[in-house]
Amino acid sequence: MPPPVITLLTDFGSSDHYAGAMKGVIVSICPEARLIDISHDIKPFAIPEAAYTLAQAWNCFPAGTIHLVVVDPGVGSTRRPVLAEAGGHLFVAPDNGVLTMILDQAPEYMVREIIASDYFRKPVSATFHGRDIFAPVAAHLALGVPPRSFGDRIDDPLWLGFSTPVGTPEGNWSGVALKVDRFGNIVTNFDWASFQWVRERPFYLQAESRLVQRYCSCYADAEPGEPFVIKGSGGYLEISANQGDAAKMLGVNAGQQLVIAFSSEPAERDR
Amino acid sequence: MPPPVITLLTDFGSSDHYAGAMKGVIVSICPEARLIDISHDIKPFAIPEAAYTLAQAWNCFPAGTIHLVVVDPGVGSTRRPVLAEAGGHLFVAPDNGVLTMILDQAPEYMVREIIASDYFRKPVSATFHGRDIFAPVAAHLALGVPPRSFGDRIDDPLWLGFSTPVGTPEGNWSGVALKVDRFGNIVTNFDWASFQWVRERPFYLQAESRLVQRYCSCYADAEPGEPFVIKGSGGYLEISANQGDAAKMLGVNAGQQLVIAFSSEPAERDR
Amino acid sequence: MPPPVITLLTDFGSSDHYAGAMKGVIVSICPEARLIDISHDIKPFAIPEAAYTLAQAWNCFPAGTIHLVVVDPGVGSTRRPVLAEAGGHLFVAPDNGVLTMILDQAPEYMVREIIASDYFRKPVSATFHGRDIFAPVAAHLALGVPPRSFGDRIDDPLWLGFSTPVGTPEGNWSGVALKVDRFGNIVTNFDWASFQWVRERPFYLQAESRLVQRYCSCYADAEPGEPFVIKGSGGYLEISANQGDAAKMLGVNAGQQLVIAFSSEPAERDR
Repeated sequence: MPPPVITLLTDFGSSDHYAGAMKGVIVSICPEARLIDISHDIKPFAIPEAAYTLAQAWNCFPAGTIHLVVVDPGVGSTRRPVLAEAGGHLFVAPDNGVLTMILDQAPEYMVREIIASDYFRKPVSATFHGRDIFAPVAAHLALGVPPRSFGDRIDDPLWLGFSTPVGTPEGNWSGVALKVDRFGNIVTNFDWASFQWVRERPFYLQAESRLVQRYCSCYADAEPGEPFVIKGSGGYLEISANQGDAAKMLGVNAGQQLVIAFSSEPAERDR
Repeated sequence: MPPPVITLLTDFGSSDHYAGAMKGVIVSICPEARLIDISHDIKPFAIPEAAYTLAQAWNCFPAGTIHLVVVDPGVGSTRRPVLAEAGGHLFVAPDNGVLTMILDQAPEYMVREIIASDYFRKPVSATFHGRDIFAPVAAHLALGVPPRSFGDRIDDPLWLGFSTPVGTPEGNWSGVALKVDRFGNIVTNFDWASFQWVRERPFYLQAESRLVQRYCSCYADAEPGEPFVIKGSGGYLEISANQGDAAKMLGVNAGQQLVIAFSSEPAERDR
Repeated sequence: MPPPVITLLTDFGSSDHYAGAMKGVIVSICPEARLIDISHDIKPFAIPEAAYTLAQAWNCFPAGTIHLVVVDPGVGSTRRPVLAEAGGHLFVAPDNGVLTMILDQAPEYMVREIIASDYFRKPVSATFHGRDIFAPVAAHLALGVPPRSFGDRIDDPLWLGFSTPVGTPEGNWSGVALKVDRFGNIVTNFDWASFQWVRERPFYLQAESRLVQRYCSCYADAEPGEPFVIKGSGGYLEISANQGDAAKMLGVNAGQQLVIAFSSEPAERDR
């Protein structure tokens, strides 16, 4: 049997000891665990960005993978640590909405509040539950401790609404920039299944004061410097620019509102 | 027996081949070695920051772990490469003070100068001892070569004074910002064991021209934007701000002097 | 037999899910594969920088290592995915010049176009061939699928000229800054084998409007703040400054032209 895989997704950055300390705790408990970083460079406290990043990565991993998520502005407060079973994977995280898109994607899930402090690293600090609670729980899961040992089911895990566009009274859809990636691609929450009509119908996508009206099926189809809409690899519409930074061109940051609409005019280039 | 763990802590950054080349050298010598990054983003040549980061991470790892530390402004000069045994772990590093806090923490230690060039990668470059000396030594340790094979004991490993606050003639304590972490928390060298009286007694902690006079036991207890003192997860007082960047608010960088004192007045908010 | 090693070199950065998703795909196919990052922080689309970084790292790894390179501005266009066998290692990459310095270094090589879509992850997105084509091909290679299964030999892999300085009519040599590393060292394409005469003969190296005329054999030989030429650990001349940032001092970026020449005057300090 291959060794259990534990992924790590945090906002700890790469210059501190935080991620390394978590890994040390894990291999001290479960030396066989295989550790794979998803990212430690989520913007500090950016829960929607972390939720999107997790939702994009988790199902590339084999069934049974344990995903350890520590983006935790409420560390030390009363927010609950949780353990979710969904889609054949396990998720260890604070109950702050970071699992929203996992709950969206999984047809069934079971979320438990982690209360079994026997598995924690002692003493539990007030500021670093990644090391003292989340990492040891993930490591014990990798050792084979069953999820029910960590706490009872809860019915009210925090779910946040950022994953779903909403219709407007004018018949348009209002959405949000989930993330701006390294290349300046703006990932929207307009999912391809619902919005693939942009391929065939005139549309405009409003980002700040600019309108994007062009759809391209690959980066190379666009002229350099021209913002366009593309089917992103994650299953959502993205706004991109061929070898350029669309987010800078349009002045868009993660979290900003976007509007998409049918256009009565034939599509033409954004001016 | 689980495979030997080698941690890596450098100031090589993540955009160059340096860390990858070291890992290639290690797995070429000891394919079973398990490699775990602590950080490659120590500020270039920042020895106190590296020393603190190592001191925070090492004892999260299992006994027998080999810690490879390459923050080495003196590469190519006469500074010695050393191998330290302390606390049941092994440390391979340049003798430039980067092991200061390990020597502080371990009740006993043995430091050797690495001179056995048979274990080096040839030719040894003048600028990249990480690849040519430190990585191959760590890999041979992981293979089971005993520490004594690398060189004789030395009695004068470099120890630097940054880890300990000093009393002032006025009865205060003068310390230093060991590190500013990703979240803007200022890690001081005021250790909790000696300075936990901040919980109970009025105090002020002077950072630049500002006074911090509030103690909180967790981030969420403070109002957003308010700097306060907290017991850091590493065992030192830290200056933090709830979901804010305390270092930016106070204008403090790593290395700057801090002063802490009893206050005759009841504690009140920093104005 | 030790597990197969797969290295990763991309321009994906560290804040997105891209590298993590590729790793998930690999361990889903070949759980034994050992994953080692060379870098994910190549500047977006910087093919010469990626080529140099790969050329510096690959031969630190054991024979049989699979190097996965995804710096791919032409993703989704007609550029070919290729698999190269060279120097006893395997390279999986887009055919965009990123293997130039591998082809330079290997006395023999065999490059194949990857066409066997049975090994791809389906559906293949237009924007993330790292996940859908390159990672699964590398994982199947690690499983033992022979290179010939992925496609036929091609005789015209893209080779770009950035690795070789050229003589000028005036009898000088014109070269280029291959990379600026984290410490501000400027890596040139003047190889040590051809240009080691800088140790013995007066020379000047022109970088922007500045002349560097001093050679040092190690950083510590130079005075702080003084730019000088040194034999870099990668086998090329580098321009460095002792504990300073030579690239900032001289205003040099990767890609800029450099000229080196014999000097009729005895070498003196750059003024």
